[in-house]
Amino acid sequence: MEDKAQIQEAIKIQGEVVRKLKSEKASKEQIDEEVAKLLQLKARIGGDDGKHQFVLKTAKGTRDYNPKQMAIRERVFNTIIGCFKRHGAETIDTPVFELKETLTGKYGEDSKLIYDLKDQGGELLSLRYDLTVPFARYLAMNKITNIKRYHIAKVYRRDNPAMTRGRYREFYQCDFDIAGQYDGMIPDAECLKIVHEILSELDLGDFRIKVNDRRILDGMFAVCGVPDDKFRSICSTVDKLDKMPWEDVKKEMVNEKGLSEEAADRIGEYVSLQGGMDLAERLLQDQRMSRSKQACSGLSDIKLLFSYLQLFQVTDKVVFDLSLARGLDYYTGVIYEAVLTQAGVAPAPAEAQNGAPAEESVSVGSVAGGGRYDGLVGMFDPKGRKVPCVGVSIGIERIFSIMEHKAEASAEKVRTTEVQVMVASAQKNLLEEKLRLITELWDAGIKAEVMYKKNPKLLSQLQHCEESGIPLVAILGEQELKDEVVKLRIVATREEVDISRADLIAEIRKRTSEA
Amino acid sequence: MEDKAQIQEAIKIQGEVVRKLKSEKASKEQIDEEVAKLLQLKARIGGDDGKHQFVLKTAKGTRDYNPKQMAIRERVFNTIIGCFKRHGAETIDTPVFELKETLTGKYGEDSKLIYDLKDQGGELLSLRYDLTVPFARYLAMNKITNIKRYHIAKVYRRDNPAMTRGRYREFYQCDFDIAGQYDGMIPDAECLKIVHEILSELDLGDFRIKVNDRRILDGMFAVCGVPDDKFRSICSTVDKLDKMPWEDVKKEMVNEKGLSEEAADRIGEYVSLQGGMDLAERLLQDQRMSRSKQACSGLSDIKLLFSYLQLFQVTDKVVFDLSLARGLDYYTGVIYEAVLTQAGVAPAPAEAQNGAPAEESVSVGSVAGGGRYDGLVGMFDPKGRKVPCVGVSIGIERIFSIMEHKAEASAEKVRTTEVQVMVASAQKNLLEEKLRLITELWDAGIKAEVMYKKNPKLLSQLQHCEESGIPLVAILGEQELKDEVVKLRIVATREEVDISRADLIAEIRKRTSEA
Repeated sequence: MEDKAQIQEAIKIQGEVVRKLKSEKASKEQIDEEVAKLLQLKARIGGDDGKHQFVLKTAKGTRDYNPKQMAIRERVFNTIIGCFKRHGAETIDTPVFELKETLTGKYGEDSKLIYDLKDQGGELLSLRYDLTVPFARYLAMNKITNIKRYHIAKVYRRDNPAMTRGRYREFYQCDFDIAGQYDGMIPDAECLKIVHEILSELDLGDFRIKVNDRRILDGMFAVCGVPDDKFRSICSTVDKLDKMPWEDVKKEMVNEKGLSEEAADRIGEYVSLQGGMDLAERLLQDQRMSRSKQACSGLSDIKLLFSYLQLFQVTDKVVFDLSLARGLDYYTGVIYEAVLTQAGVAPAPAEAQNGAPAEESVSVGSVAGGGRYDGLVGMFDPKGRKVPCVGVSIGIERIFSIMEHKAEASAEKVRTTEVQVMVASAQKNLLEEKLRLITELWDAGIKAEVMYKKNPKLLSQLQHCEESGIPLVAILGEQELKDEVVKLRIVATREEVDISRADLIAEIRKRTSEA
Repeated sequence: MEDKAQIQEAIKIQGEVVRKLKSEKASKEQIDEEVAKLLQLKARIGGDDGKHQFVLKTAKGTRDYNPKQMAIRERVFNTIIGCFKRHGAETIDTPVFELKETLTGKYGEDSKLIYDLKDQGGELLSLRYDLTVPFARYLAMNKITNIKRYHIAKVYRRDNPAMTRGRYREFYQCDFDIAGQYDGMIPDAECLKIVHEILSELDLGDFRIKVNDRRILDGMFAVCGVPDDKFRSICSTVDKLDKMPWEDVKKEMVNEKGLSEEAADRIGEYVSLQGGMDLAERLLQDQRMSRSKQACSGLSDIKLLFSYLQLFQVTDKVVFDLSLARGLDYYTGVIYEAVLTQAGVAPAPAEAQNGAPAEESVSVGSVAGGGRYDGLVGMFDPKGRKVPCVGVSIGIERIFSIMEHKAEASAEKVRTTEVQVMVASAQKNLLEEKLRLITELWDAGIKAEVMYKKNPKLLSQLQHCEESGIPLVAILGEQELKDEVVKLRIVATREEVDISRADLIAEIRKRTSEA
């Protein structure tokens, strides 16, 4: 019951919006969004032929994976899952949505990015924002006090997408967490070992894992003269240090957050420090820092952590970095973040061309992060019983982007199927014989294809093999049927050999065993 | 700012609702729902200790998967994916939500079960209801005219959950589809071959695959005297034949849908027919049926289909059944549905005890369904270009339920990790040595665990192995370190052998190679 004239007027106005944005050279994403609105309006009024016109797109900030992307995704997942399993993790799964109140009060400012479901009667639901809060809910609900689990699933954030840099509204997280009351820093060190193993194995170029501790940050704030109630707020300003220079961070602290210049300068000295076990040792002796009990227990733990990291042989990539803050509220101890340091491998930030701030490209490299959160499970337990947890989350979308770019640049073709053999015919009217043969192959576990045509040309059958990388063709003809053989063609060499029907399956297995 | 007194009043009323339901022996689900509402009210007012009380549950109709369930799920997926890959399918993925209008007009009456997202500004979105419509959208959007793909992902329906029977609001579908203009019935037959392979391999007991064709149904309705505009409506009544006896179906046709009794009786004769190729042949000769061109082309195709199914050697389980209708609007040709016929393996329908209709338990067995939908892609294409498609969807949740029950009943223990060896110590103060050893093992690709304690008891280390099925323990002690050996304990036999450090990795691989 829409008023056609009204919609036509809206289309006119929206058309002008788009033209204006284009003339102002607005960002591609902004233009795309307004164009989508325009198309939706046009769809409501119907196309020229009177049919309903669909806007053919995926939702903003999301994307499909085509078969080639899926092949790469499978490879990345296999590496990651392989590592998680090597470390003895079980896996769990939780629903894509949670009761809204399960997510309430866990993410601080970021809560505004949560997707809510429409109230259609019944419970109020939200899409999960990460896998950590559902994990904590799962532990409390099932009264589990120790578990080592991984969880690979999509999470949802109504953030500003930057898809060329691998930032989406629907994206995968690969989480590994260890819950339980254990001796200090052993599980924490294993999480870092895992990050090291995965990033090395994926071969994404050089990387660095920054480590810090929430207690060191809080202690540092205290001894630098930050008032208690400003800890969290100053902490999120420190968190911006990987995106903006100290001068700007200081300005924000003093001008916006009302910190004294003296206090800010003291913080500035500390957050410029980077090192290893030696730095932790030095800070334990530091006159000011040593006044904070909290900072001291954090520093002692950093020392212990590094001693385990030495045994795990991963200290080459790990840096104790006092500027690392991390945004999420729930961390209580050690925190860490892995960044790729080889800028070359990361996809070029296309937005920069459209006038987006160039410094953002610095943060392209962050691919994993995590830390200790000893209080989260207790927030769900009716009696507040705590379950100490530490974990790491691998940010897969960026890794996908890099792997995709690498695959495109490389000469090696990405196969999207695992077909070992194509059942083909050289003459007409052999469909039945081909179906009989492929049934034998399938039933023996051979991956095989046949064309869905009664009489396909031999050439088009061979072409399909070339295109999709199928290594073998089993060719049937009148003569082969009479001789009870199959002509086996090796696609790469174009060599052809007659194989008796009885030996065919063994022969195919032998010739594709390395694949 | 809620009025405490008001909420307390609401709690009182809700408490009475729950008591009333319990006294009336209402269904467990109804009671659970009202209890949840009560708990939510109580949560709003805060617990006794003044803390905010969470309702610790997953959203209605959803569930977590624990590690044991995940191990079973992985096994089932491996079988299904193995089959899809054997048949040369690629895979794709699509977002969990689509533009609302992408789903509009595809599901007929079932559209009311679609989950919508809240309008938070921007596009209107809905959770996907199946994987078929997103697949059609993907094909049209990318102008793909032929592909053979599988897609395994969760879909969402605001249906009445019946979780004990494997009916959830969030559930997996495993879809295999073939899109493209091909010679008749070859891809259709392959879909049935795939269902046959998967159900055989999963070993769920005996099954039957019912086959029919929308054109036969429509032709039958025409020759039986159903007015054109009542085809769909009468079709959904026929669809209920697996849940209620013919008498009731006829009553619905005559009394509710206004069909003449004569026409209903004619339909009744046809829908009682079951057979194979012979039945299709017989119906082609049938005086009344042969008057419909549509029915005849459907029947000829059924004959052709069966000839291919014979070559695929799957006719033992396939039945041409004229009562099969299937609910979804988009089917245009052959349709099919697989049912488990061995009632014993299915989980007992717990609801029946609470007064739910007993006849529903008949339909427990449906585990796969699909058909040909030649018009769906065209609905998305701006020029209406059609891409013929045929596919099958495996309904995994019921299969999970059955496998879980089987696993529980069997003596065999389900392992939730793949750990090959536990690194343990017999004496104190060997943590560093253990971490050194496990680093060697991890770096060699061995799946290994160590306890996160400085000085765990040997007994508790061995107990952990027994519990989680770890086959080997590598025990370090002062003597072993001096001798440069490791004591390797075989958990099953309690046998212990000294292995030199240099040979340890090879020895572990050898002893766990069959695992």
